[in-house]
Amino acid sequence: MKIKPIGIIHSPFKSKQETPIQPFRSKAVGEIEVLKQYERGLDDIESFSHLILIYQFHKSRGFSLKVKPLLDDSLRGLFSTRIPRRPNQIGLSIVKLIRRKGYILFVNGIDVIDETPLLDIKPYLPEFNSGEEVRTCWFEGRTQ
Amino acid sequence: MKIKPIGIIHSPFKSKQETPIQPFRSKAVGEIEVLKQYERGLDDIESFSHLILIYQFHKSRGFSLKVKPLLDDSLRGLFSTRIPRRPNQIGLSIVKLIRRKGYILFVNGIDVIDETPLLDIKPYLPEFNSGEEVRTCWFEGRTQ
Repeated sequence: MKIKPIGIIHSPFKSKQETPIQPFRSKAVGEIEVLKQYERGLDDIESFSHLILIYQFHKSRGFSLKVKPLLDDSLRGLFSTRIPRRPNQIGLSIVKLIRRKGYILFVNGIDVIDETPLLDIKPYLPEFNSGEEVRTCWFEGRTQ
Repeated sequence: MKIKPIGIIHSPFKSKQETPIQPFRSKAVGEIEVLKQYERGLDDIESFSHLILIYQFHKSRGFSLKVKPLLDDSLRGLFSTRIPRRPNQIGLSIVKLIRRKGYILFVNGIDVIDETPLLDIKPYLPEFNSGEEVRTCWFEGRTQ
């Protein structure tokens, strides 16, 4: 399966070290520049307050199956973390849409390195607002 | 960028017509079969109640920038929908983890076609449980 960027994410973070661990830790504003050929695909996007960005972890190489997340002291299975070094370099973030200007989206809560290749945008739907209990065990209490 | 499946999703849905529109409409149980070589990467996954599955819309070909979602009567911009026909065939679903048996995860709320190629698994973290208002405009009221 081949993947081609549909745009590029501009952020204030020039290196991994500067980049926040999760979007809910970030107040940074980013610019999502979608390729002009896809501009019409952005219609109606302003009707959503939050978007899911899917992008390439373009700076990551290789992976380990047991990893130590930044927020943790123990080795964890890779798929129970969001660490960028994964078999497929696919990342996702939920961001808040501030406004759209043509093929550019201004968003809040960006947590990726500048010039990250954008692969897709999907509307964020709060799947679990019906009171369903969500358990995040080892991650608990680390989201503040 | 090249993408390789890390496993396969088994579901009761053999065709697009049978497949639910969104996971919160589905009560179906699916089996996520991760390639044996990645089994150790699943450690600690039981500590999360919900998972994000990233997969390939392997039955989709081509795309249009203006589309009519199943739940709607108007043409919408592609990126304000979750329609499978997209520039990159990447889909995501949030499912409930029932149990793990080695390299197989049994999940609830599956909404993909049987034998969908799995690209990644990430823990689901409820980013917006802090009372932040989420707006989903045209989609509103269609999630029940």
